[in-house]
Parts: sequence; structure tokens; C-alpha cells
Amino acid sequence: MNATTPPAHAADTIDAGLLSPVRAGTPAEAATSDGAWLQALLDAEAALVRAQAGLGNVPGAAAEAITELARAERLDLREIAVLSRGAANPVVAVVQAFTALVAAKAPDAADYVHRGSTSQDIFDTALMLVAGRTLDFLAADLDGIAASLRTLADEHRQTLMAGRTLALHAVPTTFGLKAAGWLAAVCDTRERLRRLRSDGLVVQLGGAAGTLAGYVEYERLHREARQETAAEGYAARLAERFAAETGLSAPALPWHSHRAPIAALGAELALATGVLGKIAVDVQSLARTETAELAEPAAAGRGVSSAMPQKRNPALATLIRSAALQVPAYAGVLAQTMLSEDERSAGAWHAEWQPLRECLRLAGGAAHTARELVAGLEVSPGRMRANLDLTGGLIVSERLAAVLAPVLGKAAAKDVISRAARTAAASGLPLAEVLLSEDVIAERFGVRDLERLLDPAGYTGAAEELTARALRHYAPRQSMSDTP
Amino acid sequence: MNATTPPAHAADTIDAGLLSPVRAGTPAEAATSDGAWLQALLDAEAALVRAQAGLGNVPGAAAEAITELARAERLDLREIAVLSRGAANPVVAVVQAFTALVAAKAPDAADYVHRGSTSQDIFDTALMLVAGRTLDFLAADLDGIAASLRTLADEHRQTLMAGRTLALHAVPTTFGLKAAGWLAAVCDTRERLRRLRSDGLVVQLGGAAGTLAGYVEYERLHREARQETAAEGYAARLAERFAAETGLSAPALPWHSHRAPIAALGAELALATGVLGKIAVDVQSLARTETAELAEPAAAGRGVSSAMPQKRNPALATLIRSAALQVPAYAGVLAQTMLSEDERSAGAWHAEWQPLRECLRLAGGAAHTARELVAGLEVSPGRMRANLDLTGGLIVSERLAAVLAPVLGKAAAKDVISRAARTAAASGLPLAEVLLSEDVIAERFGVRDLERLLDPAGYTGAAEELTARALRHYAPRQSMSDTP
Amino acid sequence: MNATTPPAHAADTIDAGLLSPVRAGTPAEAATSDGAWLQALLDAEAALVRAQAGLGNVPGAAAEAITELARAERLDLREIAVLSRGAANPVVAVVQAFTALVAAKAPDAADYVHRGSTSQDIFDTALMLVAGRTLDFLAADLDGIAASLRTLADEHRQTLMAGRTLALHAVPTTFGLKAAGWLAAVCDTRERLRRLRSDGLVVQLGGAAGTLAGYVEYERLHREARQETAAEGYAARLAERFAAETGLSAPALPWHSHRAPIAALGAELALATGVLGKIAVDVQSLARTETAELAEPAAAGRGVSSAMPQKRNPALATLIRSAALQVPAYAGVLAQTMLSEDERSAGAWHAEWQPLRECLRLAGGAAHTARELVAGLEVSPGRMRANLDLTGGLIVSERLAAVLAPVLGKAAAKDVISRAARTAAASGLPLAEVLLSEDVIAERFGVRDLERLLDPAGYTGAAEELTARALRHYAPRQSMSDTP
Amino acid sequence: MNATTPPAHAADTIDAGLLSPVRAGTPAEAATSDGAWLQALLDAEAALVRAQAGLGNVPGAAAEAITELARAERLDLREIAVLSRGAANPVVAVVQAFTALVAAKAPDAADYVHRGSTSQDIFDTALMLVAGRTLDFLAADLDGIAASLRTLADEHRQTLMAGRTLALHAVPTTFGLKAAGWLAAVCDTRERLRRLRSDGLVVQLGGAAGTLAGYVEYERLHREARQETAAEGYAARLAERFAAETGLSAPALPWHSHRAPIAALGAELALATGVLGKIAVDVQSLARTETAELAEPAAAGRGVSSAMPQKRNPALATLIRSAALQVPAYAGVLAQTMLSEDERSAGAWHAEWQPLRECLRLAGGAAHTARELVAGLEVSPGRMRANLDLTGGLIVSERLAAVLAPVLGKAAAKDVISRAARTAAASGLPLAEVLLSEDVIAERFGVRDLERLLDPAGYTGAAEELTARALRHYAPRQSMSDTP
Repeated sequence: MNATTPPAHAADTIDAGLLSPVRAGTPAEAATSDGAWLQALLDAEAALVRAQAGLGNVPGAAAEAITELARAERLDLREIAVLSRGAANPVVAVVQAFTALVAAKAPDAADYVHRGSTSQDIFDTALMLVAGRTLDFLAADLDGIAASLRTLADEHRQTLMAGRTLALHAVPTTFGLKAAGWLAAVCDTRERLRRLRSDGLVVQLGGAAGTLAGYVEYERLHREARQETAAEGYAARLAERFAAETGLSAPALPWHSHRAPIAALGAELALATGVLGKIAVDVQSLARTETAELAEPAAAGRGVSSAMPQKRNPALATLIRSAALQVPAYAGVLAQTMLSEDERSAGAWHAEWQPLRECLRLAGGAAHTARELVAGLEVSPGRMRANLDLTGGLIVSERLAAVLAPVLGKAAAKDVISRAARTAAASGLPLAEVLLSEDVIAERFGVRDLERLLDPAGYTGAAEELTARALRHYAPRQSMSDTP
Repeated sequence: MNATTPPAHAADTIDAGLLSPVRAGTPAEAATSDGAWLQALLDAEAALVRAQAGLGNVPGAAAEAITELARAERLDLREIAVLSRGAANPVVAVVQAFTALVAAKAPDAADYVHRGSTSQDIFDTALMLVAGRTLDFLAADLDGIAASLRTLADEHRQTLMAGRTLALHAVPTTFGLKAAGWLAAVCDTRERLRRLRSDGLVVQLGGAAGTLAGYVEYERLHREARQETAAEGYAARLAERFAAETGLSAPALPWHSHRAPIAALGAELALATGVLGKIAVDVQSLARTETAELAEPAAAGRGVSSAMPQKRNPALATLIRSAALQVPAYAGVLAQTMLSEDERSAGAWHAEWQPLRECLRLAGGAAHTARELVAGLEVSPGRMRANLDLTGGLIVSERLAAVLAPVLGKAAAKDVISRAARTAAASGLPLAEVLLSEDVIAERFGVRDLERLLDPAGYTGAAEELTARALRHYAPRQSMSDTP
Repeated sequence: MNATTPPAHAADTIDAGLLSPVRAGTPAEAATSDGAWLQALLDAEAALVRAQAGLGNVPGAAAEAITELARAERLDLREIAVLSRGAANPVVAVVQAFTALVAAKAPDAADYVHRGSTSQDIFDTALMLVAGRTLDFLAADLDGIAASLRTLADEHRQTLMAGRTLALHAVPTTFGLKAAGWLAAVCDTRERLRRLRSDGLVVQLGGAAGTLAGYVEYERLHREARQETAAEGYAARLAERFAAETGLSAPALPWHSHRAPIAALGAELALATGVLGKIAVDVQSLARTETAELAEPAAAGRGVSSAMPQKRNPALATLIRSAALQVPAYAGVLAQTMLSEDERSAGAWHAEWQPLRECLRLAGGAAHTARELVAGLEVSPGRMRANLDLTGGLIVSERLAAVLAPVLGKAAAKDVISRAARTAAASGLPLAEVLLSEDVIAERFGVRDLERLLDPAGYTGAAEELTARALRHYAPRQSMSDTP
Repeated sequence: MNATTPPAHAADTIDAGLLSPVRAGTPAEAATSDGAWLQALLDAEAALVRAQAGLGNVPGAAAEAITELARAERLDLREIAVLSRGAANPVVAVVQAFTALVAAKAPDAADYVHRGSTSQDIFDTALMLVAGRTLDFLAADLDGIAASLRTLADEHRQTLMAGRTLALHAVPTTFGLKAAGWLAAVCDTRERLRRLRSDGLVVQLGGAAGTLAGYVEYERLHREARQETAAEGYAARLAERFAAETGLSAPALPWHSHRAPIAALGAELALATGVLGKIAVDVQSLARTETAELAEPAAAGRGVSSAMPQKRNPALATLIRSAALQVPAYAGVLAQTMLSEDERSAGAWHAEWQPLRECLRLAGGAAHTARELVAGLEVSPGRMRANLDLTGGLIVSERLAAVLAPVLGKAAAKDVISRAARTAAASGLPLAEVLLSEDVIAERFGVRDLERLLDPAGYTGAAEELTARALRHYAPRQSMSDTP
């Protein structure tokens, strides 16, 4: 960075990513930028004209000219943003600017811009385009994450570690099973997103209040001018054509103030980010100085502290967790704004835009970050084993209880073990030794028996079976883009 | 109500429904009560023993005895609730009390209660049982709502009314299309819930830390005692058997700290409640004194004001909206608590229970209430027509613009209409008359033409086509319980 | 807008305000932009050096040079944003770039940049600076709103209108009292913000983990070099000096992972936005086509529909409501992230930044918008009166009940009135006439009496008294900047 | 527990605390039960009659009779709850039942029950009564917590431990300073609650739509009957009298649909719970098996696992965290429902009740639990010291950098230290030894110097000064009830 030459325009930029490093510079950020959104608005306008042209009431040349001119870089984004206050949404300002552009470059086409349409048809469709584009990046990153997790699960099928519940050692498990659990969650959310991508992203097409009256009227005028009778089913055909032009699905009805598609999109993004956030908090838990079973991949400038040269902070996990702490709240706004009165709400619709973008952007940023995290995750089987041995066998006391119960009775067995556990913890003596000082134990078990019973490696239950099952069940499948 | 005899126990009850009338006395309330939850915990314990018996390592008689004794009314609910503080969850206290009960009534069975298990296996499975039972009530009510909405959509295919956007008249629509929009949203969420019910409600079975080590160990000891070798795949078979005994699905892996199933359940309930809340805000909008196009069904004590004898408040819509304002927040907690560290979180798991119950209970209560609302909804086509005429034709100015644009040019057309609209509004003169005072209009249109153009009945676009399509698309299908 | 010349850089901008018209172009947007935030980070760095210089262990010339160079426009905002991923926060990248700048321009000063410091000291202090600057704009707009509301309350002390509860007419009230209610809420939140501004915006100063060890060490080395003993209380003096240099308050202790100041700030902004949102929903309720008692101020391009020339949408209220639907969720994140483990959380801290900025920006944008709304609000006393008369006297049935109760008994009175209300509503006859057809009424009241009783103007209770009280209680006071 | 005798009524109870152990059996649960709420509703009704009696228009005997009969146990709570669906709030059903009771026992008083009133006056006032009563318990527990924290801070002024940021050791600190940080946060929130208790809990008194018309009319009729002129300012006098009778404050105006008092209450409870939750996550972080610096107080049945006899789970911290994960969401509903249209919202008001109760109940339960936690917290200075030494001096590398910077230059110093840190971590050699193998170090420092520099005890910065300051600043003050 050459900091001595002042860069241009820094002061004008509202948001350059400074407060949201989890997505700064990621594909999701680019796919959801205001520029990308403006482009999607123009894409929707152009697709609408092409759809009408395809049904015959707009000249093909006009549709072509409009499509060609529909480039965000030709409009003044900031000016449009500020003008958007007038109508409370950006479409009116976009239509004015874009119509002026078309009028200047292709005058015959200008009357066909936004013809018969309404702000919400354009905006909601653009939003779905942006969502689809961002989901594709998200999906690719989830696929990459799954690939790394398969490797980890496979390599660590027999890597012993402590299972931990309520912050304490519980019983032994394997790192393979832990990775398999992450894998299952990632693949499940990936599959949900695939389904959403394939049928949950729908165009909006309803005209001013959901009847498509404007579109139908232009068709009627067109037929009238040709002394033809209007054909049945124009509305359905137009919606399907519009869907085809955009690559989105056609809904059963216009959904102007029925916002379940938006709320469902937000909910899926919250699920996906939550799944990644779970991995992040696990990594942090295992990266703590005293535990040190995992470490983040090293890279220049990564995990640097401004004060402490020795630190290599779990920066990637931190970024992911920061996203996962936010997305549920933004998705919650989208569930709340389902309370949309009338044919278009005076405010509920408008409240969706920023939270939805944040859901997309943070989920995408988190996935991009998590991909890097799991691809280079450093695993320390040695530390895992050392930590497992910290409690001198207490970690298999559940097994001990199962073995002693038929011999001593369930309650007595639990008592003996609890007492021995306390003594071992207080005295620092090995649990086996403490146990053998109890007559009821010494009468029935030898040192060998006890050592075998207390070996964590002998008490991993179905960990290996479950890991293998997960690797079969979540074997690689085709990517999202292959299977719409 | 005989208020002079003091009822027993009023003071002991923590929650009798007083602050949540939307669910007071509804099936969802009963299905999610603490008593119902305690029963589900016992059902899970009994199913677990039966599953183990089915695989041969528990005597059938013990499983039968335990199943028979597993009745919530045999335990002291309040005492268990208070004791639950000790372990931070109710299962430990339930197991102690239930084991004591079994020990007293069927001593040989007592050792098999909760054998090999962990609190979370029982609690999460019970939660899914409660969810399934509540979803069945919710589904039945949604089916009832859909039936009423089909009738409304069908009967009012041609009932004209104002379409409203941003609080103002926009263009004409029909009440049939409005009802069809509600229908589509209700059926879509109903279908999502059917899918969730059929494969999203999964048992939990992982033992202390997700390896099923306890269950596997008891199987091993059982085999060892018989000098048999342990069979492969015991963990998978146990999970499937457990699922079969509970009527829930078997997951690919234990999901102790992978909480997507819970978050997804919450998200679906928020969607369902949002769909109902949308109907409620529409009813309120149209019930306002000045509008009066809809009224709630009358019933004794319904919509009564404590102060004003003349009022018939939209109490049902109010209740539904009160639910829809809450559920997104509770569902949000469930997305947030996906950040569950380790094999069991110290707090995130415990934070789920109340919010999830509220989601179930409020969604169920809202559906029960909405069913009553739509079944008896009073529609006033006369008021709809009168309101439509309030603006003297302004409501079809979009059409006017479409017709005038080719004649006058788009901008000039919009100018003429805006000017005329302002004049008509200010003077109270009919729009047609004002328009005819403009030369450009008078030259081209006669009074008849204008009257025809300004007739709202002529500008409903595809309203009828869309209503018919919705009635076809969302024709009745089988109920949830028929098609798991 | 000259749309034919493509503007530069549109595609690079992440956020230019396109999706958030409520704040696009407002002072709050400028005050919270990434550029403004970067400036605040540099302001914090410079203030820290000046504070150290003030206590003697940094040369005054270095502090001056650093202060002079601390200009956001000298750094590359976007590059810093992208580099911020490395450390999971922007401060490390800022410090590197800024140190390079200082090293180039004032080499002797470079070693004093960020000396002894930690990212969080700088970031949290910068955040408080940004908050203070935005609150000043917010406060000025709230003062402007209050001024307009005082005028409305005063002018409409006797403007009769219907009081409405649960969507229906309840009893008469005045528009003056409605405006007085808005005024009280605005002034109460204004006063809360004044208190927050004066003592709730605190510097952060703790060093790497809250002990100020780095700062203290540099002081020790400074003293050691001079063979002086370190003075007591250096930490406290440094914090106070830092506070003085920034214009913020000094806290009792560093608050690195004690986030109540942030959560409290979010909570106050949610309150303020909620107060404004309440005004917005009231305006929307009264602007509905059928009610039409209020209209938004007219302006070129305001409230324009992309489809319907006749509409003048309540765009300002819509924008305000869109903000008020979002801020509670963002403030909720800030309450949630109080769960910050250790001396600095790995993620909770990082999750605060965007939600807090949105709270500031949306509250500020909403206030700026509301100021415009109330300043030009169009009130129609004629429509208010006409709507009041819509129900033919039913709106004073509460009064009737009070008057009849002593005569007929409470229950009988309510019965008579309810029956008459139903008859009047069904038949369209005036309530007075219907009532007089009941013997119990005709025996006791004449037409005159009834007409007097049924006159809404006679049943406004304490509306005028309350309005006057509010105007006294909330008389103008000094501005926030006058009274820190 | 005698589990063999089935307890009565278990099945009827909607909520006995089973799903919310953090508050089961606590004072806050009792203070917020439906029974307590019903009592508060009756208290509000009685206070209203006494207030009217005090101003002369209700006979004193009637007020006395009503006050005496206003006992929740005389009404059927469940019946009222179910009947509440009719009016969408419980007050109408309460008034009917209570009026019947009064009519039976004190017939002359019956007409004065709820005279001139509206549901919201009673409900909101009752809510404030419940809030006040719960806050008193909360305050007492916070005082108890503060007392324990003072002791911990004082006793551990010099107890060294690792300061941890982003999951890793940062620089040394003391446990005294950690306890002092908790203390400061607890006392700050305690002070905020004191202010809220003293002036933020306000009666509601507005009549049907905020004009007090009903109350004023009864006063007018009373005066009229005596041929007296109505006195000025009756509304204000009634509100003040009502406030005096309830012990709450009188607001400037009725606040029916201005809900800032409710939202502010929720926000304060979220802050308080967040402060406690911060303590909980710190305790969990330090209780982890590998760290083991803190342990929860032992007690019979506490922290018991259903599976693992050796565990002593941090159950109290888990309960507190479970509350802190929920309250922000509930408080968020209260900020959202500020969007209350008209003089009373059709749903927003009704959505407040359960979330507010949960805020009160969970905050109160969390405080009760936290008091127990901190009173018996087990601190292990030995483990703290051992963990501090785990990294062989790396924890003071910040100091090293400060000392080396003037000698080697800032960048070179950081390089040397980072390299040495990596070598020490990889090789397991002590940092001092590794450093001395670098010429630039060996030339300038002896072993002694380095050992002194690397001693964590020498690098605690202002920890002791800050702890002392906190103990002075947050010395005990009078309790909430002493200083309203």
C-alpha cells in the first residue's frame, strides 16, 4: 500500500467494507453491491421488455436496444440513490434515468421501458436475480468446505479426542466424528439451498396492484389496433416468459404483499450461516491456549495482533462467528415484515432490502472464509491425546458405571465412582489406583482389567461407524449450477 | 362463572394463559403444556427401552412395565420443575422420579430406565414429539382455513374492490383475487409443513457425547455375558428402532450440537404465523370504520370493549397479529443458538426450549383463531363498490395513461392526468368532466368513451384468470396425517 | 441527471445508499460512512498520542505531526477494508498504512503511532466519536420535529377528530392532543439522548487486555531513562486526558468485553426510531384514501408512483416506518453480543459494528425524514369532522352509557345502547331517532337533550387540558450541543 | 419426592416452570405468575376506585369494599384466561367476574368497579406493578452479587492470571481486576434500574382513547347532581391520586399507544441480563477442563449429569447464559411494538405481554442464579499461575517489544520476538533461552534481565490501581427500596 498518495473519492464512499471484514473483497460482496443491484434492476427491466416482445406487443428491435443499453455503469448510482427518497424506492429514479438514456440512444425504444409495470415487479425480480447470483458463490464455497471436511473426517477416523459437554470433558470421541458432524450439517444446508435455488427464486409480476392490469391493457390496445381479440391466459404466458428471460421460476400468483419467498430465503441463509458459525465456535473452543488441539491456517498478515507479536489469533473463525451473530437478526426482520398490509405495504416492503442483502452477503462471506479455514485447519492429534489423559481416566467413568452397575447395583456403582473421582481429582492419584483401594473393586477387578476399562481408546462407541456412515451418506454430488 | 367460590390453586399456577389469549384454550396450548411435555419426556424414555428390548438386550417385560408406568400424571410436575435447576435441565429430575416410581411398582424394570442414555437424547426427542403433535393441530386448522378461503375466492371472483398500495387506492382488483392470494400463501406454508412433518422431525440418539458409547457398551456387556460377538451396526439399528417406536424420523447422525433441525422448525413456524398475520392485517385494514368492507364474525362476548358499547372490535385479527409480532423473535433465538460449542453447549441448548414452545403454541393458536376468522368473515361488496367510487375514476388513471400515451406521448399523457386528478380532488368534480375540459381530450374522446375507460369494472386485468388459476392450483389435497 | 455520460466508479461502490433511501443523502449517512469512520479511527489515534504528549512521554512535535497527518483522504479506504480480513478488524491495517504515511512525512513521529495501544482502544473510541457526531444531527432533527409538533398541538387544540382503538372509532379526541402525544414522546426520547450524549459516550482505554500495561510500560521506560520514579495514577490520568482530547467521557474502568455502553446506545436509538415510527404509522392510518385526514407535504418527485399518475404516496412516513422496522433487530444484536467471553471476544465484538452503524444511520435518517414530514403535514379538520359524524353519534355511546347507567342501571343501559347501535348501523337511521323509539329513553330525554349528549364536541374529556399541559411541560429547551 | 402418589392437576397446568429452570422456584417467577398478574389487575382496579373516592365522586365505603374483595384467589384464573379471547385481553373478563363478586358481597359498590375506565388503563398499570415488584427482587439479588464481587476483587487484587483475547493468552492480568470489571458492570446496571424504578414505572390513565372522557364525565355528573361546577384539572388530579395509590409515577400524558416506557423497561432488563451473562461466559471459559481456574459452588444435585458420574457441570452459569440468550429477543419485540397505530393498536399492544413477562422473569431468575454462583465461586490461584506459565514467557512479549523497540527499532523488535515465539512454541524451549541465542539480544541483555522482563508478575500494568479504583467507585450504597 502506498499510503502517501491520497486516493480519490474515499470521502464519498458510504460503505467500502471497512466494518464488515468477513465479506470485504469476497465474491458475495461484489455480487450484492449497489452496482450489482442496479445492474439487476436493469436486467429485470430488459427481461420484461424482451418477454413482451416475445409475446408480440413490443418490437423486437426495441427489446434489443433496451437490453444492450441496460448497463449499470451508464447510470449515476449515487444520484439515483439520493433521488430514491422521493418515491421511497429506487425504481422510479432508475426508470427516469434509464428512459432518458434510451431516449437519447434509441428513441423508438424509450416508450417500452417499464411499460405496464410497477416498481415492485422490477425490484423484487432484481432481488431474486441478486440472490441467485450470490447463492451460486455460496454453493461453490459450501462444496469446497464439504470436500475439506470429508478429508478431515476420513483422515481422523481414529484420532481420539475428548468429547466435551457443558464445557467439561464428557466421554471420548474422535476428531473424525467431529468433522463428520460438521460435514453432515454443511451438506444438509447445501441441499436445502439447492432446492431453494431451483424453485424458491421466483419472478415478481403483478403490475400496480397484482392484477397485471397494465400489461393486459397494453396487450388489449395492441390487439385492438390490429382488430384482433385478446387471447386467453396472457397474464400467465407473460409471467412464464418473464421467468424464462430471467432464469428464475414463475410463481402461481403475483406475491406483492405475500412475502414468504423473502422470509424463506432469509431463513435458509440464517441456517447456512449458523452451520458455519457452529464450526467456528468449535474451532475457537479447541484453539484456546490451554487446549491447542486445532489452529487456523497460517498466512501472511493473518491473525495478527496490533499489540502482541506472539499471537496468531483465530481470525477466520472470528469473522465467521461475527457473521453468524448477525444473520439471525436480519432474517428475523424478514419474517416480521411478512405483516404487509394491503396490496403493497407502506414500509414493510422497504424494510426488507438491507437486511436481505446483509443475509446474502454475510452468509456468502462466512462461507468464503470458512472454506479457507477448513482447507488449512491444523489438527494436533498429540494435543488431543494429551488432553484426553488429563483427567487420568475420569473421562470413561460412564463406562465404569455401566460395568459396575450389574455387579454393585446402579446406585452403589455411581457412588463408588463419584467418590473415587473426587479423591483422584483432589489427590492427583491415578483413578485406577484410587479405585483399587476400594474393597468392592479390588475384590472383583485386577489392575489390568481396570486399565483396559479406563483406556479412552476402548470407549469410543460407534464413532467410527458413524463417521463411515456420514462419508457414505454425504459423498460428493453434482454442484448447484449443474442441477437446477 | 361463579365468582363467589374461590377456586383452588390459582396462586400456584405460573401460567394459565392469562397473558396469551391467542392460544388460551386452543389445542396447541394443550399440546405444548408442561404436562404434555412431561408426558413426551416419558414417552421418549419408554420408546428408548422398547427399542433396546426390540434389539434384544432389555427384557420385553421391563419395556412393557416401563411403558405402562410412563404417565405424566404419576409424577409431581412442579417438584420436577424446581429440581431441574440442579442439572440445568429437567431430564435428570424426571429420571430420578420416574426410576423411583418404576422401582416401587416394577422393581425388575428400574435398572433399564434411561439406560445408556443422556438428557439430550430424551429431551430433544420429546421436543420433536411435542412438535409433531402440535403440527398436526396446526395442519388441520390450516386445512380448514384453506377451505374457507377457497369459498371466498370462488364466491367473490367478480366482487370489485380497490387495490391499495402504500395506504392509497391504486387500481381496481377483486376480493376474489385477494382471497386467492391468501389461499396461495396458506397452501404454500401448509405444504412446507407437510414436508417438515414427514422428514424434518428426527429423534435424537447419541449418548453422552454423540458416540452412543453407553448404548453400545450395554449391548457389548449383554453379548459378552452370552459369549456372543457384538454385531456390526448396532448404533444405526438402535436409532432406527427408536425412530420407529416414536413415529419420528432417524437422522444420519446424532445432532446434539448441530441445531439446524430446531432452527428450521422455528423458521417454518414463523413463516406460517406470518402468512396468517398477513391475513389479519388485511382484515384490520378493511375493517376500519371509514372503510368497513370486512367485519369479523359476530359471537357472544367477541370483540367487546370494556368501555364502549357500540364497538365490535376485530378481536380475532388482533389476536393473530399479536402472535405474528412475536414468533419471528422467538424463531430468531433458535437461529442464534445454532452457535453451540463442543458436543453440547453450556446454555445455547437450554435457551431453545421456551422460544420453541412459544413458536409452536403461537402458530397453533393463531391458526385456530384464523380458522374462526375466515370461516365467518363478513364481506360487504356494497361498501367495496362505494369505496371504489370514492375517487370518481382516479383509480383507473393508470389505464387512462396507457390509452392516452400513444395519442399524446407518454409524458404529456401523465401530465394531463396528474393535472386533472388534482383538479378533480380539489373541486370535487367528476374526473371525466374535468378531463373533457382539456382540449386534447375533448378532441379525441366522447363522454361515453371516457365513462367506459373510467369504469373500474373494466380494469381488473387478469384478476379473474388469476383467481381461477389459484383455485385450480390449490385445490384440496389430502391432510397431513394421511400423507406422512 | 445527464444519463448519457457514464459516471466513474459506479461498479466499485459497495454501498451508495441505493437500498436505504431513508438515509440516502442525509447528514447521518455522511456521519457514519466508511470515510467518516476511518477519520474517527485516525482522530482516536491522534488523540491518544496527544494525550501521551500531554503527560510528557511523547514529544509535542510528534503529536502535532501525527494530528496533522491524520486525514482519512490520505489513506486508501478500500485497500484497508480488504486487508482488515487479516486481523478481523480494520485497526491493524489502518495502523500499518498510517504509520507508513507518518514515516514518510514525519519520520521522527512514526514510532509514537498507536504506541502501547490495542485495536479495541482505537476502534471503540472511534465508534463513540462517530456516535456522538451522528447524535448531534439526530438531536437537531428531533428539536426541529418538536418545534413543528408544538405548533400543530397548539393550532389544533380544538380540532375534533375520532379517537380510534383496535381499528375502529372509539370516542372523540382532538388532533391537538394527538400532536401533543407525539410531542411528549419525541421530547422524552430527546431528553434520554441528551443524557446519553453527556455521559454515555466513553473512551476505551485498556491496552492489550484491560490493564493498560503497554501505556504504563512506556511511561515506566520514559521515567527510567530519566531516572525518575513512576508517578501513581498514570492510568487514570491518561484515560482522562484521552477523554478530554476526544470530547468523550472517561469510564471508571476499561470496558473491552463489558459492552453495556454499546447495547445502551443501540437501545436508545431503537427507542428514538420507535417514537418516530409511531408518528409514521399514525400518519399512514389517517392518510388512507377513505380517511384522508392527513396528507404528506407535497414536493416535486415526492410520493410518485411508477405506475399511477394520481397517487401521492405517503413516502416520508413509509421511509420512517421502514427504518423503525429494522432498528429493533439491529439493537437486539448489540444486546446479544454482551455475551463477550474473556478480555476480548472472538466474534461478539466484531458483530457489533454494522448493526450499530445501521442503528445510528437509520435513526438519523428517520429523524431527518420525520422533520420534513411534520413540518409540512397537511391537516384536514373538515375531513376529521366528517369522519367523526360517519357513525351518527355512536362514537359517544360511552357517554350515553355513563348518563343512562344511574337511571336504568349499568347493564340495562349498556343493553339499550348496544341494541340501538345495531339498529342504527343496520338501518342508517340517526342514533338519536332510534333511541327515542325506546320508551325508557323517550320517557326521560328530549330530542335536544339527546342531541346535546350525542354531540362529539361535548365529549372530549380532558383533551384540551392535556394538550395545554404537554405544551407547558415540553416547552422548548436548550439544544444538545448547548448542554452537554 | 414421593413419586408413587399421583399429584393432582398436573395435566391442567400450562406452565409450571419445566422448560425454564433458570427461573423455576425463584422470587421472580412467583412475582410474574399469572396469579400475581391477576392480583395486580385487581390492585389496579381497587386503586382506581380509591383514587376516585379520594377526589370525592365515589363513596369511601365502596372503595373499601372493593379493595377488600380484590383478591386473585377469589376468581377463577383459568376461566378468565380462556374468556380473554373474546376481547383479546383479559381485563373485560376480569371486570365481569370481579363485578359479579362485588355485586354478590357488596352490592352497593358494584357500579363503581372499573367506572369510566378502559382495559388498557388497568392492564398497563398492573404490568407496571408487576414490574416494580419483580425489579425489587432483581435489585436485591444484584446487591448480593455486588457484595460477593467486592470480596472477590479485594481478595484477588494480586492473583495473577492470563488475560485472554480472541481465545488466546494476551498479557497477564489479575483475577481481582476481572472481578472488578464484573462489579462495575453489575453496579452500573443496578444504578440504571434504580433510576428506572424511581421514575420509569408510570400508571396508565387515559380512558377509552386517552382523553379521560369517562372519568371526567362521571365527575361532571357527580357535580351536576350536586349543582356544583366541575373543577379545573380533574384529569391531572386523578392521575396523581391513582399514582399515589399504586406507588407508581404519574406520566405527563396518557401513553396508550406511546410505548417507550415498555420498550425502555425491556431494554434495561436486557442490559441487566447481558451483564450477568457476561459473567457466566467468563466462568464457563475458565471452568473448562483444560483451564480449570474457576469452579462453581458445589451443592447436592448441582451440576449432575444423567450419564457421567465424574462431572460437575457449570449448571448455574449455564442457566444464566440460557436467560441471556433469550432476553434480547424478547426486548426486541417490545421495541418493535412501539409501531402502535392510532389510540390503541390492534395487536401491537397485545404482543407485548408475554415478552415483557419473560424479560422480567428471566432477568430476575438469572440474577437469583448469579447470586448463588458468585457467592460460592471457587477460585484456583494455583491453576491460574500454572496456565500463565504454559507459554514460557510468551505472554509478556508485548513488554519485550516495548523494551526492544527503542534499542532495535520497532519493526526489527517485533520480528525478533515473533521469530523467537515461533521457535519456542515449536521446540518447547523456554523463550528466554531462544532469545539469548539471537546476537542482538545476547549483546544487550543478560539472563537475569530477560527473566525479570519475562516474569508475568512484573507486567500487570495498572491492574491493581484499577481494582482499587473500582472498589472505591462501587462501594456499597443504599438499596433500591431505601431510595426510590
